[in-house]
Amino acid sequence: MIMSRRTVIAGAGAAVTALGAPSLAGAATPAAGRQSPGVYRYTVGNVEVTALIDGVARRQVTADFVRNAPLEEVKGALRDAFIDPNLLPITYTLLAVNTGSRLIVIDTGTGGRTAPTAGQALENLAAAGIDARAVDTVLISHFHADHIGGVRLKDGSLAFPNAEVVVPEAEWAFWMDDAQMSRAPEAMRGAFQTVRDVFQPMAKDVRRFKGATEPVPGITAIPTPGHTPGHTSFRITSGSDQLIVWSDVTNHPALFVRNPGWHVMFDMDPTEAETQRKRMQDMVATDRLRVAGFHFPFPAVGHIAQRNAREFAFVPDVWNPAL
Amino acid sequence: MIMSRRTVIAGAGAAVTALGAPSLAGAATPAAGRQSPGVYRYTVGNVEVTALIDGVARRQVTADFVRNAPLEEVKGALRDAFIDPNLLPITYTLLAVNTGSRLIVIDTGTGGRTAPTAGQALENLAAAGIDARAVDTVLISHFHADHIGGVRLKDGSLAFPNAEVVVPEAEWAFWMDDAQMSRAPEAMRGAFQTVRDVFQPMAKDVRRFKGATEPVPGITAIPTPGHTPGHTSFRITSGSDQLIVWSDVTNHPALFVRNPGWHVMFDMDPTEAETQRKRMQDMVATDRLRVAGFHFPFPAVGHIAQRNAREFAFVPDVWNPAL
Repeated sequence: MIMSRRTVIAGAGAAVTALGAPSLAGAATPAAGRQSPGVYRYTVGNVEVTALIDGVARRQVTADFVRNAPLEEVKGALRDAFIDPNLLPITYTLLAVNTGSRLIVIDTGTGGRTAPTAGQALENLAAAGIDARAVDTVLISHFHADHIGGVRLKDGSLAFPNAEVVVPEAEWAFWMDDAQMSRAPEAMRGAFQTVRDVFQPMAKDVRRFKGATEPVPGITAIPTPGHTPGHTSFRITSGSDQLIVWSDVTNHPALFVRNPGWHVMFDMDPTEAETQRKRMQDMVATDRLRVAGFHFPFPAVGHIAQRNAREFAFVPDVWNPAL
Repeated sequence: MIMSRRTVIAGAGAAVTALGAPSLAGAATPAAGRQSPGVYRYTVGNVEVTALIDGVARRQVTADFVRNAPLEEVKGALRDAFIDPNLLPITYTLLAVNTGSRLIVIDTGTGGRTAPTAGQALENLAAAGIDARAVDTVLISHFHADHIGGVRLKDGSLAFPNAEVVVPEAEWAFWMDDAQMSRAPEAMRGAFQTVRDVFQPMAKDVRRFKGATEPVPGITAIPTPGHTPGHTSFRITSGSDQLIVWSDVTNHPALFVRNPGWHVMFDMDPTEAETQRKRMQDMVATDRLRVAGFHFPFPAVGHIAQRNAREFAFVPDVWNPAL
């Protein structure tokens, strides 16, 4: 078991080997140069959840990113979190939820339609050992491109070809309304067009649910409008356990969990979004509920700690290597 | 692209599909029932670091776990971190460090010698695309079994057959000393025996380094005794970037980063360990240095925030899906 090169070193005398650092360059191993799959599993009662990262967009932190806070305060919050105050990484994490009888994907990621550093969802789904053809249901929280983009592959075919697509009625009513689209500011036209590209070819097959219903057995909807008109959170329940899936109730926790009164530029009705954010944050903090957030750092699951009346913090789950 | 079963649903009328949740059980997909590989990559200048989780031990939190704090305070700290106050998960994360010219493993994990929920290091190394035979150097921080156990496979053969094993001289001097072993309390005999099982067959090939030297090019040693007599931290430097690898300077951050004065039962010289912990914690907090901790939650890398003179917190890095 003794390698010849080590024998040579040993032969040079223990004192020398103990003190010096002889040049022993082995054959250089190339760097991998890429991240490993972003896949993390956890359970909610008997339900198995697989968190899958779709990627990241790195966003210049400009004065309009948080509409109602001074840029220096925003940058200070990022520095406090050891995040580059000029370039905020916003990650996307979707969920595959296996209830035992159904396999549901909640939100789909970007489908590679946005940042070149995103669009990894299907690759990570495969790395997780899940066949996209086995997905029964695609459940959508709201119609922003980073949530619905992955409904289709880049060639327009369905990413989850056997899945029923289930969406909030209030999102459908808003985004599919041509009158809303024509009234929308120019900067929002692309968002309306993405909704049409994704849903129009299958419009009659999309199932729409209204309000606080149970769109899929074991998963109830919690209307949380503001971020978008029909933005919806979900509660996954199994036995006495539950998980709140709150999608974009908050964007990055270092900014918006800490400061639930801050308005991210993506919130369409900032005041209503703030109301819902504070309501949801109070609920999960008070009841110590586990929460998954689409823009939480991967694996995007944890709790919200409330230290005092004004101070909240996201506490990520400890990575569990043995289910 | 329209699936027949969805066509059937659509045929039942949009109003019905919008409101009801028709029973649509697809073929059930079996739960995976296991965690995905715990592999995470990051860079330090031109150096590529791959964090690999070896597993977890779940430890009953008894009165002697923290020697100098009331059990209720310890449990309170765990509750604050949303961790089961009776069963603390202590995870093990080792590092594979590719400097371009060398591939170094820092600490080796348990080798499957301790908890049945640990011993995943080599499996995760393979998942990371790293051949154990390509590892040039195994660099050891200290001689506890969860750090050296993985030097050998369970059959006794070398896990990294082509690697030079490099250890702190002060650890070697203490643990290989038969007089120390004979003086040790009965409960520590196993630890001494593990050291012998691992190192005795290769004793003349092990390279020992003394003090604040550079045991491997680009990696300097920082003596941090107390946890064990020769416990050593490392500093990986590349260009203007650096990473502090502090091994067991702290155990779980929810307890010992928050309370650097607390003495975990594993610290052999608790007073000296506290001194080193406070010194290192002050250094990385003040200089905002990134730090890897063997018992930090995976991927076990982040910063230490100091909010005021007494309040520290571990801030994990945001998972980066695109290197």
